[in-house]
Amino acid sequence: MKPMGPLPPEFADQRDVLVIAGREAPAWAEDHGTPVFVIDRAIVAARVARFRTAFPNVDLHYAIKANPLPALLDAVAPLVDGLDVASGGELERAVRVKPADAISFAGPGKRDAELAAAIRSGVILNLESEGEAARALSLGQAIGVRPRVAVRVNPDLELRGSGMRMGGRPSPFGVDADRAAALVRVLVAAGADWRGFHVYAGSQALSADALIEAQAATLALTACLSEEAGAAPPLVNLGGGFGVPYFSGDVALDVEAVGEGLAGALASRPAVLADTRFAIELGRWLVAEAGVYLTRVVDRKRSGGETFLIVDGGLHHQLAATGNFGTVVRRNYPLAVATRIGSETVEEVSVVGPLCTPLDRLGDHVGLPHAEPGDLIAVFLAGAYGATASPTAFLGHPAAAEVVA
Amino acid sequence: MKPMGPLPPEFADQRDVLVIAGREAPAWAEDHGTPVFVIDRAIVAARVARFRTAFPNVDLHYAIKANPLPALLDAVAPLVDGLDVASGGELERAVRVKPADAISFAGPGKRDAELAAAIRSGVILNLESEGEAARALSLGQAIGVRPRVAVRVNPDLELRGSGMRMGGRPSPFGVDADRAAALVRVLVAAGADWRGFHVYAGSQALSADALIEAQAATLALTACLSEEAGAAPPLVNLGGGFGVPYFSGDVALDVEAVGEGLAGALASRPAVLADTRFAIELGRWLVAEAGVYLTRVVDRKRSGGETFLIVDGGLHHQLAATGNFGTVVRRNYPLAVATRIGSETVEEVSVVGPLCTPLDRLGDHVGLPHAEPGDLIAVFLAGAYGATASPTAFLGHPAAAEVVA
Repeated sequence: MKPMGPLPPEFADQRDVLVIAGREAPAWAEDHGTPVFVIDRAIVAARVARFRTAFPNVDLHYAIKANPLPALLDAVAPLVDGLDVASGGELERAVRVKPADAISFAGPGKRDAELAAAIRSGVILNLESEGEAARALSLGQAIGVRPRVAVRVNPDLELRGSGMRMGGRPSPFGVDADRAAALVRVLVAAGADWRGFHVYAGSQALSADALIEAQAATLALTACLSEEAGAAPPLVNLGGGFGVPYFSGDVALDVEAVGEGLAGALASRPAVLADTRFAIELGRWLVAEAGVYLTRVVDRKRSGGETFLIVDGGLHHQLAATGNFGTVVRRNYPLAVATRIGSETVEEVSVVGPLCTPLDRLGDHVGLPHAEPGDLIAVFLAGAYGATASPTAFLGHPAAAEVVA
Repeated sequence: MKPMGPLPPEFADQRDVLVIAGREAPAWAEDHGTPVFVIDRAIVAARVARFRTAFPNVDLHYAIKANPLPALLDAVAPLVDGLDVASGGELERAVRVKPADAISFAGPGKRDAELAAAIRSGVILNLESEGEAARALSLGQAIGVRPRVAVRVNPDLELRGSGMRMGGRPSPFGVDADRAAALVRVLVAAGADWRGFHVYAGSQALSADALIEAQAATLALTACLSEEAGAAPPLVNLGGGFGVPYFSGDVALDVEAVGEGLAGALASRPAVLADTRFAIELGRWLVAEAGVYLTRVVDRKRSGGETFLIVDGGLHHQLAATGNFGTVVRRNYPLAVATRIGSETVEEVSVVGPLCTPLDRLGDHVGLPHAEPGDLIAVFLAGAYGATASPTAFLGHPAAAEVVA
């Protein structure tokens, strides 16, 4: 039997029938069919509240790439100070729910049309290279709008222990730290509305110490760059990187410790940053635990002495949960039989999807209560990087329903 | 510098400007924008012709999961004897272009609605378990149509050296060989129209010897099962598994050797299979090399002493090419600068997409001729498992155009 990750706290102590957002799982499946993503906005709000308490003087941005579902954006936008977008498509969704100057647009390879749309709408462009900066300035002139810009810095630091490191090495993201101040001077001299720095060192970190260290280093770095540029940044976006426990042995991030660490670093920050605002951009940490993916057992079969539960959902909706998205070693997300949650494990099964590929495996040799065709399997941590991060058209199966409750 | 895989033969000897289906790459990009998949139906037809010569007495099926683009199906359907589908969605596309009795439907976890649609239309169901067989029989009775069925067997053999092994172990696919004959007897006794066996031992194999061995073992296995069931199968689908060379060091499959091997095995096949037809189902091998993905360079930047070409396409259209779909060690697909194909390598670059993730890398430290923003990069072997096997909605970028020429 292989282990599964821990259930999110809101679900960990439930017994018998899984309840999501006040309704039993079978009711959700009845109303919307299966598979269905159910996202509990109250859990998102609880994460926001926890952040506010831990980081009283830091802005909170939502990185909508984690889940751009319009109904979720409607719920999250009023709770946060800003939205971070990663494409022209995300930009269109963001400007509907938030003022443009609370939106920033990062991402290498922004096309001219995307830059122009951002400039026209007044969104802050996090510039990723000198070439992109030159294009933004030139488009701003052509359009007759002064671009709002920040400089994304490729920091000479990395976020230790993060699931995905994005700093401390040659990178498509941001301008190398040793050239960032020069770019700020160019932008200011060209008359752009320079809004500060963006530094993103990594994602999916569960170590508070690593985040404290990275944030302190980011403060020091942006202070140096500001001195070198001869300009104080209105905003420093410290990045995000707060992880959630997906796998066995993962321990939830001590967010309060990170908050204390950052408060200490801010209290002693260099004078050039005295009037700067700070923001943290979070995607996964805000929404992952709020989502449950419900999928129905279609067949139960034996093969080679093992038992398989074949469900109607799989990697076409939940690629990461099957271990096929940037993962080296496949491990199990937390799963449950939705009508027997908290019941004793009685058998070892593999939970596989309907696709004709051995990659389509949601649970590998997991221990579960007995389940039969018709039963619902819940896959937790489905609120982030689910439907949009999966090959929905693969093998021609229907899309999953998505509900925000 | 890291190596790339070999260019498909139709492109390997081209010089200067890449020509696809008789037109220069920039013309395709001009007409359809970028990124664009261009699929040359003449290359598909050449693969079909090669198969026909190598396998004169074997049916050829197209496994449409490899690329279900309607325009491609229109082109392929008249060239092949059958279509294999893996979902109700693929079934709908297939019945538009091929008679139902030339279509077979495999896949674990077929829902009742899918089984019923297949039975109503007269498509052959490749049954994956006893439970699915019982549902199909019962639905056939309810609908008043005699179901056409084959038994998919989980063989006690594996395809050595295949990229993805699907036999020889506990599996969601098919009925274990030691129970398959019993299921045939049940189906025949229940009055179903039993059409034979389906055996699929693996995919993406480049070793002719391994395929010859697996096909011979499949013949022997299905002969045994037929004897045990007391019934001669009208059709044995031998599976597919023909690979294409994606990576450095890969050598193209010697299809003619496989054909000779199978001809030998068929010549001495057991009497019970004397009147049986045989089919091979191919997806990737028929269409992968026919497709080129063209993406435009948006930015060229230096970071940490390395050069990055940032393009407007990436893992949202070409997940497998970025090494993020069932791959343990990332390797480079073949790439070229479309206007300087065959030119000397002058620099080492990494070709990355526009997504805010380090996973979005189409070429890792590859050697290419010089390229600037505006130039086109061609990613080869893009005809199979491209658009539909990628998370198209990820980060809100537009879908790629797809053209069959």
